[in-house]
Amino acid sequence: MSNGLITLTTDFGAADHFVGAMKGVILSIAPRARIVDITHHISPYQFGEAGFVIAQSWQWFPKGTVHVVVVDPGVGSTRRPILVEAGRHFFIGPDNGVFSMIYAAAPHKVRVITNAKLMGAQISRTFHGRDVFAPAAAHLAKKTPAARFGKLVHDYLRASSFLPSQLAKHRWSGTILKTDRFGNLITNFHIDQFEQVKTRPFELRTGLEPIRRLALTYAETEIGELFAIVGSSGYLEIAANQDNAAQKLGCSTGASIELEIFY
Amino acid sequence: MSNGLITLTTDFGAADHFVGAMKGVILSIAPRARIVDITHHISPYQFGEAGFVIAQSWQWFPKGTVHVVVVDPGVGSTRRPILVEAGRHFFIGPDNGVFSMIYAAAPHKVRVITNAKLMGAQISRTFHGRDVFAPAAAHLAKKTPAARFGKLVHDYLRASSFLPSQLAKHRWSGTILKTDRFGNLITNFHIDQFEQVKTRPFELRTGLEPIRRLALTYAETEIGELFAIVGSSGYLEIAANQDNAAQKLGCSTGASIELEIFY
Amino acid sequence: MSNGLITLTTDFGAADHFVGAMKGVILSIAPRARIVDITHHISPYQFGEAGFVIAQSWQWFPKGTVHVVVVDPGVGSTRRPILVEAGRHFFIGPDNGVFSMIYAAAPHKVRVITNAKLMGAQISRTFHGRDVFAPAAAHLAKKTPAARFGKLVHDYLRASSFLPSQLAKHRWSGTILKTDRFGNLITNFHIDQFEQVKTRPFELRTGLEPIRRLALTYAETEIGELFAIVGSSGYLEIAANQDNAAQKLGCSTGASIELEIFY
Repeated sequence: MSNGLITLTTDFGAADHFVGAMKGVILSIAPRARIVDITHHISPYQFGEAGFVIAQSWQWFPKGTVHVVVVDPGVGSTRRPILVEAGRHFFIGPDNGVFSMIYAAAPHKVRVITNAKLMGAQISRTFHGRDVFAPAAAHLAKKTPAARFGKLVHDYLRASSFLPSQLAKHRWSGTILKTDRFGNLITNFHIDQFEQVKTRPFELRTGLEPIRRLALTYAETEIGELFAIVGSSGYLEIAANQDNAAQKLGCSTGASIELEIFY
Repeated sequence: MSNGLITLTTDFGAADHFVGAMKGVILSIAPRARIVDITHHISPYQFGEAGFVIAQSWQWFPKGTVHVVVVDPGVGSTRRPILVEAGRHFFIGPDNGVFSMIYAAAPHKVRVITNAKLMGAQISRTFHGRDVFAPAAAHLAKKTPAARFGKLVHDYLRASSFLPSQLAKHRWSGTILKTDRFGNLITNFHIDQFEQVKTRPFELRTGLEPIRRLALTYAETEIGELFAIVGSSGYLEIAANQDNAAQKLGCSTGASIELEIFY
Repeated sequence: MSNGLITLTTDFGAADHFVGAMKGVILSIAPRARIVDITHHISPYQFGEAGFVIAQSWQWFPKGTVHVVVVDPGVGSTRRPILVEAGRHFFIGPDNGVFSMIYAAAPHKVRVITNAKLMGAQISRTFHGRDVFAPAAAHLAKKTPAARFGKLVHDYLRASSFLPSQLAKHRWSGTILKTDRFGNLITNFHIDQFEQVKTRPFELRTGLEPIRRLALTYAETEIGELFAIVGSSGYLEIAANQDNAAQKLGCSTGASIELEIFY
C-alpha cells in the first residue's frame, strides 16, 4: 500500500546532524525510498504547530505516502510511538496529539508501535526520530503491513485545542495556528464554518488593532493595510499587503483571537 | 523533452507548509519526477533576487530540466503565469520580470499558461505555487508538449534593471544583485564587460569606503581586508577575507554601486 | 562500489545559488545520482563543526555512499582536494582536517584529487564545491574507481583538537563540539571514555554554573533544570529540560569545558 514516498516534518532545524541521520537510517533499510522534507523548522517542542503543517500538506501527496512527524518533547518518557492510517496515507510519530487535525479530517486507525524488529538495533533515550520513527517509516515504505507494527489502540491522545470555542451566540474564541513566512497570521476560523464573514460585518480581535475587512485578493488592498482573507488552506488569515501582519499587530503563533459577527 | 527534473526557487521559506504542498502536488501528478530545491529563502517578494539566483543555477542542470520560480507579489491580480523555453530548459513562474536575466542570456519563447486542464482542480487566490505552477511543472515533467499550455506571447515583462548604466565615459552605475551567505556583495558588473579592472586602476563605491584592489584569490589578501574579486558567476564581488563585507560596508542587496575606471 | 547516493554538508547556507549549482553539476554528470542534504548551515568556515556533523551522520547511510563536505576557507590557495575511503564509504572535500574524526573512527585511505578529467571544464578560484568536489562526487557515483582520481598520500591534515586532553589524574579539558537546535551543548567527552560519570560524583565546568547531575532522560528532570545526559551520539551533552542550555550558561560551539571526577 505504500508508494515509497516518505515525508519528514520535525523541529530538528537544518543545522544539525539529526535530519541527516534519519535519512541515512531510512535509506539503509529502504534504499529505494524517496524522501521529501516538509519542514524541519517547527518551533522547538511545538507539536500543535507541527500538527497544523502536516494537516495542510498530507492531502496533496499521492495515496500511500508515509508522513513522519517528530516533535517530541516527551522522548524517553512513557509516551508511545504510533502509526496512524487515515485517508489511505500513513502517519508515524509520538502519541502526543500531533495528529489531532488528521483524526478530525478523516476516518483513521491508530496502532502503538511495539515490534522491536522494526526499530533500530539500539534505542537511544533522546533520539527516537533516528531509532524508532525513521526505521518504522522505512519498513512501511518497503510494504511491511501496518498490522505487524503493533496493536490497534483507542486511547490515543486527541486534542481539540485547535478548534474555536463559542463564547456567545455570535462570538467565538480562537487561536493563531501559525505565523507564516510573510507574517500572515493563520487563524483556526475555517471559512466553511464561518461563511457569514463574507456577508455580515465582523470584527477579528488580536493584538494592537481590530480587523474588519475581508479582502478577496491582496491586490485590492492598499500597501500596508491590515485585512482578513481566506487563505489557501481555507482558514481566515490576517494579512498586510506587502507588509508583516504579525509585526504590525504584535502577536504570533499561539496567540488567542476573538471573532464577533454583527447582526 | 523534459528529463523529469524539477527545480524550485521560492520566497516561501522553509518553515511553512507551502513547499511541502507544492511537492505533494508535483508527485501526485508526476510520481517519477525528481525535485531539487534551489532555495526557498529569496527575500519576501524580491523577484529580482530570485532572477539572479535562477540565472546562476539553471545552466548547471542537464538540458530538459524544468525550473519553477515562485516569487509572486502579484498573485491573485491580473499578472499572468508563463512558461518559458530557453537554452533547452523550461522555466515556469509569474510574468513579473523574474526571468529577465534568462531572456538576456539565451534565445527564448514565452507562453502564457491558460490551459485549465493543466492546473489544479481549484485555484486559490493566494497560492498559485500549489495551484498553477506546481501542476504545470509536473505536467511538463510528464512530457506534455509546451504548446499545450498556451499561446506564445511577445508582451511579457522584461526588466533591464539588472544591467549597469553608463554615467560617463569611464563611470557606471550598478547595483548589488545579491548578498551571499558570507557577506560577499555580488555586483552586476560582469568581468566580460569590464575587463579593464584587471589592468587599470579603478574604484568601486558603495557604503562606507571605496574598494580599489582586485584580488585573484582570497588567500592573497589579509584577514579582514576589503577587496574586489571576480566571483564564480563572473560578476565582480566585494569580499572581505574571512569577514563579512556587507557588514563592514553597511550595505546589502539592492544597494547602488558606482564603478569608475581611471585613465 | 558506489551506491549512487551523495550527501552534502556545507557552510553555503540555503539562501544562495551555491547548493543549486552543485546539484546541477552532479545531476548533469550522473543523472541517476540521488542527493541527500545533511546540512548547509555549518557556521561559515568552521570545518571543525562540519567534521562533527559528518562524523555523526555517515555511519547511518548505506555502504557505498559518497559524502561531500565543503567548508573551505582555503579555497583558491594550495590546499588540496582529497578523496577518502573509510568504512566502505567515500568522503570528498578539502584537505583541511575536516575528516579528522573519520580518520580516528575507521581505517582509511586518502588520495589527492588531481585528475582534471574528473573536474569541471573551468575551475573558478572561489567555488570548488561546484567545480571540483561536485564533479568528483558525481564521477564516483557513476562508479569511476577511486584510484583514477589521484595518488594515495600520507601527509594529509589530521587534527586532534576534537579529543579531550588530560590536565590531572581526574581532570580533563574538553570543548563544545556543537550547540544543537535546542541549545544542547555537545561536549567531546565520550561516555565510552568517561564511564565513571555514571557512578562517581563529577563536575562539568563551562559558562555560568557547574553541572553535577547526570540524567538518564529529560523526563526525570525539572523544567529549566541544567543537567548532563549521554546524547544520541554517545557524547556527554549539557541540556536544560524544555529550555536552552547554551543560553542559560552563556556559551556555545568552540567553548572550552572542564570535567573533574571526584574520588
